[in-house]
Amino acid sequence: MTEIKFESIGVVQTSYKTLENMPIQPMGAKGVKASIVLNDEFVDGLKDLEEFSHVILIYHLHKVIDYKLKIIPFMDTEEHGVFATRSPRRPNAIGISTVKLIGVNGNIIHIEDADVLDGTPLLDIKPFFGQFDNREHVKSGWLDRKWDEKHITLKSDKRFKTSVE
Amino acid sequence: MTEIKFESIGVVQTSYKTLENMPIQPMGAKGVKASIVLNDEFVDGLKDLEEFSHVILIYHLHKVIDYKLKIIPFMDTEEHGVFATRSPRRPNAIGISTVKLIGVNGNIIHIEDADVLDGTPLLDIKPFFGQFDNREHVKSGWLDRKWDEKHITLKSDKRFKTSVE
Repeated sequence: MTEIKFESIGVVQTSYKTLENMPIQPMGAKGVKASIVLNDEFVDGLKDLEEFSHVILIYHLHKVIDYKLKIIPFMDTEEHGVFATRSPRRPNAIGISTVKLIGVNGNIIHIEDADVLDGTPLLDIKPFFGQFDNREHVKSGWLDRKWDEKHITLKSDKRFKTSVE
Repeated sequence: MTEIKFESIGVVQTSYKTLENMPIQPMGAKGVKASIVLNDEFVDGLKDLEEFSHVILIYHLHKVIDYKLKIIPFMDTEEHGVFATRSPRRPNAIGISTVKLIGVNGNIIHIEDADVLDGTPLLDIKPFFGQFDNREHVKSGWLDRKWDEKHITLKSDKRFKTSVE
């Protein structure tokens, strides 16, 4: 495998200090305020970002220390391949979240709906654009079935306790 | 900045051998067939992926050698902060694309709409789930305006020639 190096461009500050009871996906964190502290050197890159209502955050799931190729995700009782889940225990611990952008003030970006741990190292911010990012006529296998059965919980439990602090 | 290391889990094979005339965003590559060659060691992670119609690919924009904090993107004639664009010349050269999943055959994943260069190192595959990933009532600043003016082109030009081979 080829090693690829990135560097954190800032940090996400949230009220979630431990993995337990973390929201699962931005909809589990709906309305919860958070902020991004961007490293000062990147502030010029924020020009015009404020015109967007949503941004996609890409970040390092920094508390994950191993991965599992087959996993029982929070939202199911059956095992699936990790690439068919949004589990954090992935070969590369990269997370993505589309969050609401509230405002930009210097190197501080105010956001809502951030389903990430406090202190999460940020890798990238991309503007959300419906014409690029939304999809219609989507089939989502086991996730559709669980959603229809209303079996989905949007809070985490101790399942990944071994993989994080 | 904190260094974060990832490893490629496979490679995306497409018909796009050079950056010129590359599609911009999956909608610029609509219907174009491509494939992922996943490293054999990760094949177990694909269980049940085939039930999904779309997957989110996260990958290394491996031909980008530098970044620019303010940039004139393909789709505009004015400068914006890089985090308010989808330009590849970002502080961390990470790309995301939501593509159509056609089928899985061993370690080969057949996809459509992949707007990436042939040989792109893959970092992650996540299942697309409308309830998590779609957003309504989105405002997208300059992108909305350009879209409405039908000024958007979905093919690249030589603009990023200095940053890639």
